[in-house]
Amino acid sequence: MTFIERLPRHVTVVEVGPRDGLQNEAEIVPIEAKVRFIEALADAGLPVVESTSFVNPKAVPQLADAAEVMKRVERRPGTRYPVLVPNERGFERALAAGCDAIALFTAASEAFSQANVRASIDETFARFAPVAVAARAAGVSLRGYVSTAVDCPYSGPVDPNVVVEVTGRLFDLGCDEVSLADTIGTGTPQAVDRLLNLVLHEFDGDKIALHFHDTHGLALANVMIGLDYGISVFDSAAGGLGGCPFAPGAPGNLATEKLLALLDGLGIETGVNRTGVAQAMTELRQAVPGIGAGHLT
Amino acid sequence: MTFIERLPRHVTVVEVGPRDGLQNEAEIVPIEAKVRFIEALADAGLPVVESTSFVNPKAVPQLADAAEVMKRVERRPGTRYPVLVPNERGFERALAAGCDAIALFTAASEAFSQANVRASIDETFARFAPVAVAARAAGVSLRGYVSTAVDCPYSGPVDPNVVVEVTGRLFDLGCDEVSLADTIGTGTPQAVDRLLNLVLHEFDGDKIALHFHDTHGLALANVMIGLDYGISVFDSAAGGLGGCPFAPGAPGNLATEKLLALLDGLGIETGVNRTGVAQAMTELRQAVPGIGAGHLT
Repeated sequence: MTFIERLPRHVTVVEVGPRDGLQNEAEIVPIEAKVRFIEALADAGLPVVESTSFVNPKAVPQLADAAEVMKRVERRPGTRYPVLVPNERGFERALAAGCDAIALFTAASEAFSQANVRASIDETFARFAPVAVAARAAGVSLRGYVSTAVDCPYSGPVDPNVVVEVTGRLFDLGCDEVSLADTIGTGTPQAVDRLLNLVLHEFDGDKIALHFHDTHGLALANVMIGLDYGISVFDSAAGGLGGCPFAPGAPGNLATEKLLALLDGLGIETGVNRTGVAQAMTELRQAVPGIGAGHLT
Repeated sequence: MTFIERLPRHVTVVEVGPRDGLQNEAEIVPIEAKVRFIEALADAGLPVVESTSFVNPKAVPQLADAAEVMKRVERRPGTRYPVLVPNERGFERALAAGCDAIALFTAASEAFSQANVRASIDETFARFAPVAVAARAAGVSLRGYVSTAVDCPYSGPVDPNVVVEVTGRLFDLGCDEVSLADTIGTGTPQAVDRLLNLVLHEFDGDKIALHFHDTHGLALANVMIGLDYGISVFDSAAGGLGGCPFAPGAPGNLATEKLLALLDGLGIETGVNRTGVAQAMTELRQAVPGIGAGHLT
């Protein structure tokens, strides 16, 4: 069977621009523009729009308006609007703002975890435990993120066995899906292959998502490796927005437009209108002219 | 078997920057810089450096110095330096300049053939016939190119059966290898898959090369489709130089640096030093500051 013949017929694109994208943009985006951006992305047919983060507003001023954003966004039936939640306090705020899907964020590198959230990996799980219990009780869906699943900007190559272990702990918490993130975009197709080989030995591929940054122009190649393993959920950010303030040299996320060009070109259904995504970015750039300049390469 | 497991272990990168790249650059490159560029690319380990074209100097002033370039280039043992030849007159000039490998250029679209070389496809073969006879007699190796093997800028999608037919005629002439070119870079992985499915039904994959332009960011995805079919010869141009004056909107060739990043990242041997290729481009840019600006995306 050729590569094309083995592909999943449908892929779910998880849009992370409003959260993972905007949180790394220096210029504060007015709340009206954020709400419009989220709504335009949902209108383009994106099934999941990760909308904001209930982190400490002092740590990420760009997303200090998280509660207000979530109150204002007009929900489209069939679209999910998960939000990032770092701890119980964040979860309470998210729940009060009417969120029904949250994401938890840990890493496969101790050095990165310390730099990113000032906690060891164990400490992040200690923070997550009560959130997971409360989320299950409230019927809120849970997604887990494993940052630095390939390389760490501080400690170098990451042992895939650690990724497997952290992924397992996220599933044990009750996560419905775990997204493995190549946070600094240094992952080669060979490294992604090795990682998936190990991860999919332990977990159901239907519950694994992949999250690439396009540092060296290999994000789409890595998506193809993922598709070859039957992975059918990929994260991306409109306009390639993003990067990571705690990951030196990390450029933007894989652009949703590029991901869709690949998936459309492979004949894979996504239900997303590429022009609609580009239009959402155009509107955002009209509202905030400097946003994401130079990211979409 | 996964994608990675099925890959060819070794790939031949055919560098076309000095010919396909430079012929489309407006600024005339001094002969010393061209010779140095070719030598630096060979020094980087590229096994094939397509060096120039013996077309009518009035049609392509950039390559009017073809004979002089080929006389000056210091040959590296084991490296091949093919040149483009459009007709008998060009072949005689190439032979006089000491060339031992030539490439013939036709198309799978009549409209493109007329625009590119002011001849029908049949007429290009009429021009090639005496060249092929003379080349065989002189022990000169022959490569064939099929332009617009996917889409034509004038007449739209190209019937893959026509590509098969034209490819067959090139092999009948005595070509050792035929390179199928997505001249305007609109080929999707699905279209490339369909084409290869048909082409490899008729011809040995060892004799087929692929030549992509990166118009929509899918050149590497298309390379991966080719690799999946066992294709192991890919054309590219250092710095993404090139484009095509007769193909409106065509950007540069797939950059050799990007192709090598993919092949290295897949663990495929090429024998090429990526840094050396980047260094060759840096030197060329130092000699001709405006060259290929903005091509490497």
